[in-house]
Amino acid sequence: MLQPGDTIGILGGGQLGRMMALAAAKLGLKCHVFCPDPDSPAFAVTAYSTCANYEDYNALEQFAAQVSCVTYEFENIPAPTVEFLKGRLPVLPGDHVLKTSQDRLTEKTFFQSIGIPTAGFAEVNSAEELKAASQNLGLPALVKTRRFGYDGKGQVFLKPESDLDAAWATLGDLPAILEAFVPFEREISVITARNAQGQMASYDIAENVHRNQILHTTTIPANIPPHIAEEARMIGEKVANALDYVGVLAVELFLLPEGHDQRLVANEMAPRVHNSGHWTESACAVSQFEQHIRAVAGWPLGDTTRHSDCVMTNLIGEDISDWPNLAAEPRAAFHSYGKSETREGRKMGHINRISPKSNG
Amino acid sequence: MLQPGDTIGILGGGQLGRMMALAAAKLGLKCHVFCPDPDSPAFAVTAYSTCANYEDYNALEQFAAQVSCVTYEFENIPAPTVEFLKGRLPVLPGDHVLKTSQDRLTEKTFFQSIGIPTAGFAEVNSAEELKAASQNLGLPALVKTRRFGYDGKGQVFLKPESDLDAAWATLGDLPAILEAFVPFEREISVITARNAQGQMASYDIAENVHRNQILHTTTIPANIPPHIAEEARMIGEKVANALDYVGVLAVELFLLPEGHDQRLVANEMAPRVHNSGHWTESACAVSQFEQHIRAVAGWPLGDTTRHSDCVMTNLIGEDISDWPNLAAEPRAAFHSYGKSETREGRKMGHINRISPKSNG
Repeated sequence: MLQPGDTIGILGGGQLGRMMALAAAKLGLKCHVFCPDPDSPAFAVTAYSTCANYEDYNALEQFAAQVSCVTYEFENIPAPTVEFLKGRLPVLPGDHVLKTSQDRLTEKTFFQSIGIPTAGFAEVNSAEELKAASQNLGLPALVKTRRFGYDGKGQVFLKPESDLDAAWATLGDLPAILEAFVPFEREISVITARNAQGQMASYDIAENVHRNQILHTTTIPANIPPHIAEEARMIGEKVANALDYVGVLAVELFLLPEGHDQRLVANEMAPRVHNSGHWTESACAVSQFEQHIRAVAGWPLGDTTRHSDCVMTNLIGEDISDWPNLAAEPRAAFHSYGKSETREGRKMGHINRISPKSNG
Repeated sequence: MLQPGDTIGILGGGQLGRMMALAAAKLGLKCHVFCPDPDSPAFAVTAYSTCANYEDYNALEQFAAQVSCVTYEFENIPAPTVEFLKGRLPVLPGDHVLKTSQDRLTEKTFFQSIGIPTAGFAEVNSAEELKAASQNLGLPALVKTRRFGYDGKGQVFLKPESDLDAAWATLGDLPAILEAFVPFEREISVITARNAQGQMASYDIAENVHRNQILHTTTIPANIPPHIAEEARMIGEKVANALDYVGVLAVELFLLPEGHDQRLVANEMAPRVHNSGHWTESACAVSQFEQHIRAVAGWPLGDTTRHSDCVMTNLIGEDISDWPNLAAEPRAAFHSYGKSETREGRKMGHINRISPKSNG
């Protein structure tokens, strides 16, 4: 168990690392941010940082000597980096989690292995395999690279009339997965925390709307019946338990119509704090960021009770230029990530609009 | 108006400076902390800091060149330091505010001048004047040094049987003020923000309980009738307007019985964020810390609406050693200031215990 005054190492210096460092500070914990980008927004909020490549083992050695444990803000950390660090100190969540979540095929296979439903999928390693799998699963479907995709990057939507050779070429001839298209009613997500003692706590289920394949809004509570919310929570906690997970994780789920009822299928997981959990900072006593820090520090988890309803809206690219108006809104918490350059599609901040808690 | 990415200078590196810096980060603003104590807790939460004496004008010159404006976490900044800085960039709240609040006699005279009631008081500059004033005001009463007192330091409680010569010697023969003792029912405080455009916003009125002359708990809502709450709010805003104030200020008030009714007298003001406003971080969308940063940055003020009831309890000295239990409490936000040394009477952290909002 880390003591107040101890230091947590964070790999990655984006907005997630920044918000984790801010949350750690509330607990009296220090953070040391390691990131190759000198312009990383997380560098501004801590006195302890290293700007170096993830393959710079001298820098990693010094980093490891200055922190009590290591966590991360993104799942695509090079495996040798994690291997190097875990020989020296705890890396949480563990590298088995990264191996599962870095690869879409491994991840979906894992979901299936623990009885969590997914859309149909198939491994595809060539244009020919893509054609065969498209025949089996049917189109429309999505073909995605197995690794390094996010925010709609590294994927192609395939219609019955699509040119599959061209689609394959677009992905760059990389190992891929074909996923059946599911005509979902809603997308929801569950944010679950688990600590090393096996204590678990999930936040209320949130509903997500994407625009241009980037999260646009998260609304809490989700417009779903209680038994679906309970099932979502159980999926989050099943994943956490199966992975002997330490930290906060997010599972994105699709809600599908099924006769007069509905059912859930898992889309993907993120072994970290997640954009669809940003609402927790304004609507709960303990945010997802603090919860993650508590878990990796070996602390008791905080209460996930929600005191308010909330709609989180991402501020993407030029959205942030409206900050004087956004900051003036009543019943709202405006967040800017302090990024020095505004780029199209870049997550620049978010706003949490709260209202008195409904019964949802 | 400061833009996201701009830097605010903060004089003082204690927990108030630390929490201001954390709040500024949420708005995308940077903070540069200036403090002579190398062990200052605020240094840990920013990449920009100067460890130097307040009389080190070379250091102040460099500091001024790196920030867009300066604010402070305590009112006892040496006047020449403020004078030096204000010739170079805005210092907010302004130095006229510091001059008023650094001296208990000036402060009480100011309250009277704008029609805010206070307990009876008298200037005393010698043991003889103390004796004469004690005759006039009556005992019990409090004799306090005019400057540099806090948390009960620099004051002596005088009973009718007290040795006034000894009391005077205890204070070190410094310019002082004798204040009539008021048998108050409750102590409450109002936290008011005002920006340069004259926009004002006050938080709900909180009730304070002291132990050993240090704030022990703040409870929101205060157990007071609506007309008293309204009067307290008006006092806060009257002070802010009269001083053409920019930032957050606190006014501590005593509630006295008056026949079947009650009345308020002002005790003292603090031209800064205040311990009795720490509850705002857990019970409002925008905390006092963020509100202060907004005001000094020239931003619109945030909404002060309260979404929850809250009891803030200070963790003084060894109280903090119970942190594993405090951090495990449901419906609570635990804060540690990250101070490396626990000392008797030192403010080490606080805990905000929230509950659904009552009608108060």
